[in-house]
Amino acid sequence: MLNWLTAGGVSLLVTLVGTRFWIMFLEKKHYGQFVRNDGPTTHTVKRGTPTMGGVILLIGVFLGYGAAHLFMWSSVSASGLLLLGLVLGMGIIGFIDDWLKISNARSLGLGAVAKFSMQAVIAIAFAVLSLQFPDGRGVTPATNYLSFLRDIPWLALPVVVAVIWMVFLICGFSNGTNLTDGLDGLLTGAATMVFIAYALVNVWQANQYCGYEEVAVNACYNVRNPGDLATIAFALAGGLFGFLWWNARPAKIFLGDTGSLAIGGAVAGMAIMTRTELLVVVIGLLFVLEAVSVMAQVSFFKLTKGRRLLRMAPLHHHFEMLGWDEMTVVVRFWIIAGLSVIAGVGLFYAEWVVVL
Amino acid sequence: MLNWLTAGGVSLLVTLVGTRFWIMFLEKKHYGQFVRNDGPTTHTVKRGTPTMGGVILLIGVFLGYGAAHLFMWSSVSASGLLLLGLVLGMGIIGFIDDWLKISNARSLGLGAVAKFSMQAVIAIAFAVLSLQFPDGRGVTPATNYLSFLRDIPWLALPVVVAVIWMVFLICGFSNGTNLTDGLDGLLTGAATMVFIAYALVNVWQANQYCGYEEVAVNACYNVRNPGDLATIAFALAGGLFGFLWWNARPAKIFLGDTGSLAIGGAVAGMAIMTRTELLVVVIGLLFVLEAVSVMAQVSFFKLTKGRRLLRMAPLHHHFEMLGWDEMTVVVRFWIIAGLSVIAGVGLFYAEWVVVL
Repeated sequence: MLNWLTAGGVSLLVTLVGTRFWIMFLEKKHYGQFVRNDGPTTHTVKRGTPTMGGVILLIGVFLGYGAAHLFMWSSVSASGLLLLGLVLGMGIIGFIDDWLKISNARSLGLGAVAKFSMQAVIAIAFAVLSLQFPDGRGVTPATNYLSFLRDIPWLALPVVVAVIWMVFLICGFSNGTNLTDGLDGLLTGAATMVFIAYALVNVWQANQYCGYEEVAVNACYNVRNPGDLATIAFALAGGLFGFLWWNARPAKIFLGDTGSLAIGGAVAGMAIMTRTELLVVVIGLLFVLEAVSVMAQVSFFKLTKGRRLLRMAPLHHHFEMLGWDEMTVVVRFWIIAGLSVIAGVGLFYAEWVVVL
Repeated sequence: MLNWLTAGGVSLLVTLVGTRFWIMFLEKKHYGQFVRNDGPTTHTVKRGTPTMGGVILLIGVFLGYGAAHLFMWSSVSASGLLLLGLVLGMGIIGFIDDWLKISNARSLGLGAVAKFSMQAVIAIAFAVLSLQFPDGRGVTPATNYLSFLRDIPWLALPVVVAVIWMVFLICGFSNGTNLTDGLDGLLTGAATMVFIAYALVNVWQANQYCGYEEVAVNACYNVRNPGDLATIAFALAGGLFGFLWWNARPAKIFLGDTGSLAIGGAVAGMAIMTRTELLVVVIGLLFVLEAVSVMAQVSFFKLTKGRRLLRMAPLHHHFEMLGWDEMTVVVRFWIIAGLSVIAGVGLFYAEWVVVL
């Protein structure tokens, strides 16, 4: 309990206070964002806003996690380190991308192939490693089972397929969050809610952990280190909530790819380790919709040789083109994210009640 | 559990879907808001936006509460009816105020004396009645004890003082929420979080209710009908969250006094009945700050014979005058409301852990 509060509180303080200085530093160095050329023309006013806010978020998360472990004098866990490694790895890819954009003074960063290859390397490393390190009860951080609300017992995948599936989830979600990060505060607010959801899921799994004796055997969760994953979820939620102070419209700083890729990696990693790989489609519905909207737009355009499904992709730009104010889109998308989170956590809890 | 989900879900659906038709009706009748003359001049663009959104919120809350009881076929409770009576009473005062503004085609509605007198009558009726109706264990909906995290055992007030204190809380909070309702979505978002907090408090009190046998005697809560109060809290939170869809900037409809007075009454009523009359200063900190900012501004102006403490009161206008974008103020005030809610619920839970 106290470790979770420490992680969330420290991370929140770091971003709430530290972002101010990070912005000052970036502005002094003239590290501004060059808004991509294919967005609505109203967005050109955003040129020059500092990006790479994800750096301060990552600092907050790592300090929060570290503080929680120092304060409770507890040891870190395999699952926790793997997840942090994934988050850091994706963050570094994003950082390279952001850095190239700044130093080239143009909106284009890493090429699509280079970006995807690097993501795939990190994701493969995470997937393979997370199938190792069994604990005393033989439970590994991830499994080769497909999971919905827990591992589906009759759906064991061959290990290679399981790895590919995890890589798909990680790359899919990090691109989804990357695309969502197109309006002031949109990704920050939505991701805050998603990590609150994963904090609740992890807390519940820690509470109903199969390793405990007094737990109902048929409803308990066979997971590794849910308590430590909860610490990371709280650190992410707290850090994002604090960052929102600076990221709300008009944004003084953007998450950048550093932030959005790290967030996507964290969402997918949480889903894999909590055994909720299909449930994450509900909990993170907004990111899925944003990614699907781009794929649908591109496919439709190619199939019909030039017609468009949406006025503009990703989805949030479509509604802007329909005349919605940027902030209307943001708040309504937050509401959709909030409802998905409630539905996802509700499903998770309902299954536990039924199985019990 | 199911009754709470029903109440929240039905109320949310009613406001999410119903507000559209309510706006269409109000626009057809040309019932627009006349923004008060003392706000920033940028706000004059808001003339003509329909007000009285509180009507659809109240419909949502009552339908949600009714649906939960019908669905579970459970009887209503004394505390629940008293709270709904308070909410409805304050809503009606607000409705009269809104109606006068519309029919007079000016921003001034009820006079201050008339408004306060009506609020006081409703509040006195609520306070006196809530000290009646003991349940089988002799517990009444409210008590004459001053309460912080529960009733303070050595702080029994004379009944008359207790009634005056409750009236002060009700009038104070309904004016606080009324003042907070000055920027698009500000009150709606903040109040959503406050009622989620009260839903949690009530759920916990229902869980650790002194009437149950298997509960820890020294940490249990001596309250009346916490489960039914939770139903109302969920209905309020759900209804407000749905209403936010339409109330986010640029607002298609305002809560109006109908909504803001009803919300303030609900906050104070929840605090009184859950025995958290001092804790509500933390949970509802934003409303307190907004009210105090006006009092401080007026007092300072009178004392110094013409100098101003803030650029403009209430507090949110001060930050607008400092050059913050309206939406920056809203999101940052939401963050403050969120942090207060976390601190308040944290205090409430921490006391339980310590007492246990």
